[in-house]
Amino acid sequence: MKDYIEPNLASGFRDYLPSDAAAREWMVEAIKKTFRRFGFASLETPGVEREEILTGGDPNFKKQIFKLTLGGQDEKTALRFDLTVPLARVMAAYQNELPKPFRRYQIGNVWRGERAQAGRFREFMQFDADIVGAPGVGADAEIISLMYETLSALGLKKFSIRVNNRKILNNLSDCAGFPKNKTENVLRIIDKLDKEGWKGVEKELISEGLKKESLRVVKQLIELKGESGKVLKEAEKKFGDFKEVLSGVKELEDLAKNIKALGVPDKNWLIDFSVARGLGYYTGPVFEAILLDYPEIGSVASGGRYDNLISRFSSNNVSAVGFSVGVDRLFTAMKKLNLMPKIVAANVLILNFDEKAEITGEKIATELRRKGIATEIYLGEEKMLKGQLAYAVKNEYPFVLIIGSDEISKGVVQVKNMKERTQESIPMEDIFNYLETFLKV
Amino acid sequence: MKDYIEPNLASGFRDYLPSDAAAREWMVEAIKKTFRRFGFASLETPGVEREEILTGGDPNFKKQIFKLTLGGQDEKTALRFDLTVPLARVMAAYQNELPKPFRRYQIGNVWRGERAQAGRFREFMQFDADIVGAPGVGADAEIISLMYETLSALGLKKFSIRVNNRKILNNLSDCAGFPKNKTENVLRIIDKLDKEGWKGVEKELISEGLKKESLRVVKQLIELKGESGKVLKEAEKKFGDFKEVLSGVKELEDLAKNIKALGVPDKNWLIDFSVARGLGYYTGPVFEAILLDYPEIGSVASGGRYDNLISRFSSNNVSAVGFSVGVDRLFTAMKKLNLMPKIVAANVLILNFDEKAEITGEKIATELRRKGIATEIYLGEEKMLKGQLAYAVKNEYPFVLIIGSDEISKGVVQVKNMKERTQESIPMEDIFNYLETFLKV
Repeated sequence: MKDYIEPNLASGFRDYLPSDAAAREWMVEAIKKTFRRFGFASLETPGVEREEILTGGDPNFKKQIFKLTLGGQDEKTALRFDLTVPLARVMAAYQNELPKPFRRYQIGNVWRGERAQAGRFREFMQFDADIVGAPGVGADAEIISLMYETLSALGLKKFSIRVNNRKILNNLSDCAGFPKNKTENVLRIIDKLDKEGWKGVEKELISEGLKKESLRVVKQLIELKGESGKVLKEAEKKFGDFKEVLSGVKELEDLAKNIKALGVPDKNWLIDFSVARGLGYYTGPVFEAILLDYPEIGSVASGGRYDNLISRFSSNNVSAVGFSVGVDRLFTAMKKLNLMPKIVAANVLILNFDEKAEITGEKIATELRRKGIATEIYLGEEKMLKGQLAYAVKNEYPFVLIIGSDEISKGVVQVKNMKERTQESIPMEDIFNYLETFLKV
Repeated sequence: MKDYIEPNLASGFRDYLPSDAAAREWMVEAIKKTFRRFGFASLETPGVEREEILTGGDPNFKKQIFKLTLGGQDEKTALRFDLTVPLARVMAAYQNELPKPFRRYQIGNVWRGERAQAGRFREFMQFDADIVGAPGVGADAEIISLMYETLSALGLKKFSIRVNNRKILNNLSDCAGFPKNKTENVLRIIDKLDKEGWKGVEKELISEGLKKESLRVVKQLIELKGESGKVLKEAEKKFGDFKEVLSGVKELEDLAKNIKALGVPDKNWLIDFSVARGLGYYTGPVFEAILLDYPEIGSVASGGRYDNLISRFSSNNVSAVGFSVGVDRLFTAMKKLNLMPKIVAANVLILNFDEKAEITGEKIATELRRKGIATEIYLGEEKMLKGQLAYAVKNEYPFVLIIGSDEISKGVVQVKNMKERTQESIPMEDIFNYLETFLKV
């Protein structure tokens, strides 16, 4: 019998070992830096909220949220499942303290009671940016610009931001001539266009009771996509008689002007009338980014404008527009597309054979570290050159420093350039300057 | 009756609004940067672990850990209460994949079922660095050096790292002549020296049954502190006859040599034989950092060497040395001592009076953002100069750009330096260069 506990993860959870964790940190830092350049400020809320805050009293959440107990007692608290509900709580709780408009970003883990299955996880990272209390299209455009700059900062080039306005889809029944109360179901079906194609969507719309003429108009509208100028002109011509739809189109024209002024290149965004982004929630512009080399992974960033943000927590109301970066999905995609930069834990490994070399190595390490070069001293149990070099090769340090008694007496260090397979003897006082020419510090 | 849910936090949890959140992020980034310069790599583990992993089967944890339920079912999982148990699980689970020695840092929230009371929170941030599988004092010294460099990177100067070796305290019964099995209780009492002073400690030790001669030796030993050379020589003289104690002292001498080579100034560290750092856990050097201007807040960083890291999860074993930065405590202390840098969300606010100004402002904003200047366009509901300037003053933007129709026709922008209370008219194409001279980009 084993006398120890199996070191297994809880089902649906995962570890990120250093190579993946470093790549994720690199992503998070690039995103954060971009958000800050737009004046977004960080907000931190706890992972645990009162159950009522999260569910709004809706019993349907029961199977989705993890509730907490302590010493067998129901705490009436649960783990957050997104970062939007906490934002709403914060906006309601600190109405007078926060600036308005309020630009906040938040990064954090969220938890959902997904069934354990391949690719489904119960904890994942969200990275959200929202502007609260800015009702104009300028704010919508800013979020789309932020989406563009964020994906660009990650080194992505081949992506497309698909933009629509829920004012159009929400009033689709007007121009397509089906009963208004079918709208929710119709949108849910349209949302499957990417996966099922028009044939699949048509079949479901027929089951929903839509007539031939309605189907024709729905198809015509949701297949409208492309460069904004052309598409919006065509939409105006075809659907201009329907007041609500027209107002949505006009808003998109205004939005397009702002998106262009913000320098989002035409090749990276388009109007796509099929984009619905879920149900009920959004009330104005909606948008999602697709990787052109990996569209099947789905949208890697998405968002839109939503009114009624804080109506659950306050009799006041306030509208908001924002988006969420799918960090986990982007991470998977960028790894698969080989777009993730190679990150090494340290640039320099100092070998360590005896006490005297260790003391000298420590002095050099401190100098290099303080000047910005990540430096490691070998502290393992290998005593010989060969074993320590094997460790260096395995962990891919670009430079290895060797300090033997010969070197100490001459006041030099052997510097091995592992990539170039060269070795030079460098005076101790010149090591930083020597390494600096190779490493950007 | 109210028709909305009160936006209250769960008891024992807290929000960090932007000014605090930004300061905390600044801290975390400074710490991370320092850790990376020592070659520490990031590890991410989930917030949720199997209950058995966390408790090791010990029922005493029941009141400390938050367990999870889903749809009313006990998930047999719980929220992690520290980052060391997950590290142990990872070391046991991926023994062949991870390099050895393995330097990892991890930052994350942990949760404990503390009773709700002032200053006690149920969720707090930990920031740990550990070296696993490096048995020598070189690793102990590196952790102490990392502690010094980390606190220095936060701008702290007046702090002291107190160093001891558990080999001395664990064998205190040898030289003080009390029964060995009282050691745990005696150490628990000694741990209160900072709070209660010798008088309080002496009283408790008497209740524990220690005789006069034992008390004298305990006092003599735990009051030994100061510069390593002097203190260790004295300890050798006084306690050199006790083999285990002497070996602890010798180890400290070796450690001291390495600490000095790593450039930790004498004024920032000392030997202090009273430092115990809790019970059972540590087996070699232990250390803790105290802020000299705010000692009453307790240690802001602490750690030590502990064997048996993975014995719960594996029949192999491995020793480790590490420390934890008390981010929340440091944050409180640095705010109180006025050491926290002032962080603004954006350097530039572009005022926004009409559509034409907005379009021009968007072009300028994109240029500034891409060149690294955090820039916000005013998107709120104030239409007049006065209202927008009030927003600018409230949020402390260093620069405000004003673009009226006059400016557009002349191709210039009014740049207001809010601190200097000056205003200049600058050609649009020169704005970045102009601002760059004031702002470090």
